[in-house]
Amino acid sequence: MDSTKEFREFILTGDQTFIPHVSVDCVIFGFHEDQLKVLLLKWKTSGQWCLPGGFIKKSEAIDDSAIRTLKERTGLSSIFLKQFHVFGDPDREKKKDDFLSVHGTKKDSWLMQRFITIGYYALVEFSKVNPHPDFLSEECKWWDIHKLPKLIYDHNQIMKAALESLQLSLNEYPVGYNLLPEKFTMPELQTLYETILGVAIDRRNFQKKMLSLGFLERLKERKTGGAHKAPFLYRFDKKKYEKAMKQGLKFGF
Amino acid sequence: MDSTKEFREFILTGDQTFIPHVSVDCVIFGFHEDQLKVLLLKWKTSGQWCLPGGFIKKSEAIDDSAIRTLKERTGLSSIFLKQFHVFGDPDREKKKDDFLSVHGTKKDSWLMQRFITIGYYALVEFSKVNPHPDFLSEECKWWDIHKLPKLIYDHNQIMKAALESLQLSLNEYPVGYNLLPEKFTMPELQTLYETILGVAIDRRNFQKKMLSLGFLERLKERKTGGAHKAPFLYRFDKKKYEKAMKQGLKFGF
Repeated sequence: MDSTKEFREFILTGDQTFIPHVSVDCVIFGFHEDQLKVLLLKWKTSGQWCLPGGFIKKSEAIDDSAIRTLKERTGLSSIFLKQFHVFGDPDREKKKDDFLSVHGTKKDSWLMQRFITIGYYALVEFSKVNPHPDFLSEECKWWDIHKLPKLIYDHNQIMKAALESLQLSLNEYPVGYNLLPEKFTMPELQTLYETILGVAIDRRNFQKKMLSLGFLERLKERKTGGAHKAPFLYRFDKKKYEKAMKQGLKFGF
Repeated sequence: MDSTKEFREFILTGDQTFIPHVSVDCVIFGFHEDQLKVLLLKWKTSGQWCLPGGFIKKSEAIDDSAIRTLKERTGLSSIFLKQFHVFGDPDREKKKDDFLSVHGTKKDSWLMQRFITIGYYALVEFSKVNPHPDFLSEECKWWDIHKLPKLIYDHNQIMKAALESLQLSLNEYPVGYNLLPEKFTMPELQTLYETILGVAIDRRNFQKKMLSLGFLERLKERKTGGAHKAPFLYRFDKKKYEKAMKQGLKFGF
């Protein structure tokens, strides 16, 4: 089926497959070295940029909808998506008529109704994944989070809320596994936190807090090859890390 | 209008007012001295207990739906409700047929469709509010969170998730304003945290952490009247407290 035909069928008969009024949108953050990016799709017909989003099948769990949507729209799989917020202002889909009419949607389509969207986010090592656009999209691209284009509807706001959730989640859960090499230095871990938080952190405070959380193991080896005094290498104590992921950091008590 | 008639009308014509497939449920935690309770409603006809929940009007923001629902169903107003999670398993409304048929709902009613529910929570000083049941409910009552009855659908699970969110939120935001007297002692603040977390906390660690957060002001007066050495009194620095409520604690950096 060519993509225009497939999209037309989706507009006409999607309500046989999906529940109306509810959608999912995925904010995929990509970390690599000291950069934080976000994955966006460009619509074929209108040329507008958006978050990878989709709909919920009639008897599908919402978390499964998010995983399926991300896979169908960007090719990314095996990614842990965290639900973070629901966006439900009645006017969130501004200029929806304009947007959907470009795509051939009629006024009485199920797509023209009000949608409440459930936001999910994930943080991945962006050099390790290979995103590609789906049949609706011209392009699937990583964008610097500080230089985003104007996105459709409230997607800039959703992306901003996802970033704030990710930043606050550093108080609740450990971060770094799958983003850093197996053995890493304290400055490498600090760069990860600084990149997510967008601020410089005092080196001594950072080290003290990190060690107090209890899931870091200092190795006997040091990193070699640098010009300065070789820094210690660390790795995550996987059991303690997973326990903290499950239970949360619980204020350290 | 008598309550049976009002309810029948809601079953028959509710879909003219509300969007289908999405509901809101409110978990209201009540703190008083060293007790943590939750506010539940008892259905008139079936006698089952549930969280105060409701639906979203066609052009109403979801946060406003939660506030309106709480007010209509329990009389509580001016309460800050925090959205914490969406519950969207396809089988979350177990025995919905049984439950709704007791209330006279027909198979083809909009209420029989699958609903995804948005969970909100709040923490209030329960001696300062005066809840009362709506026309659908026989009773509106505070229950000890450790001695809950069996609730309808997945409401026990929603309440558990709300408690976990509240516990993790202690890492992210300050707590205590409106729950403690204007001037309070460190042990009183500690009791609040211990009651929410359900664990005992080391006294010295607690004091050190709390003071490091920067929104507590130690007063010159001490609490009098106790048998032991009079403890210092504290109050919240309202500006710093509000800033932390807005920005989050951001890992203390």
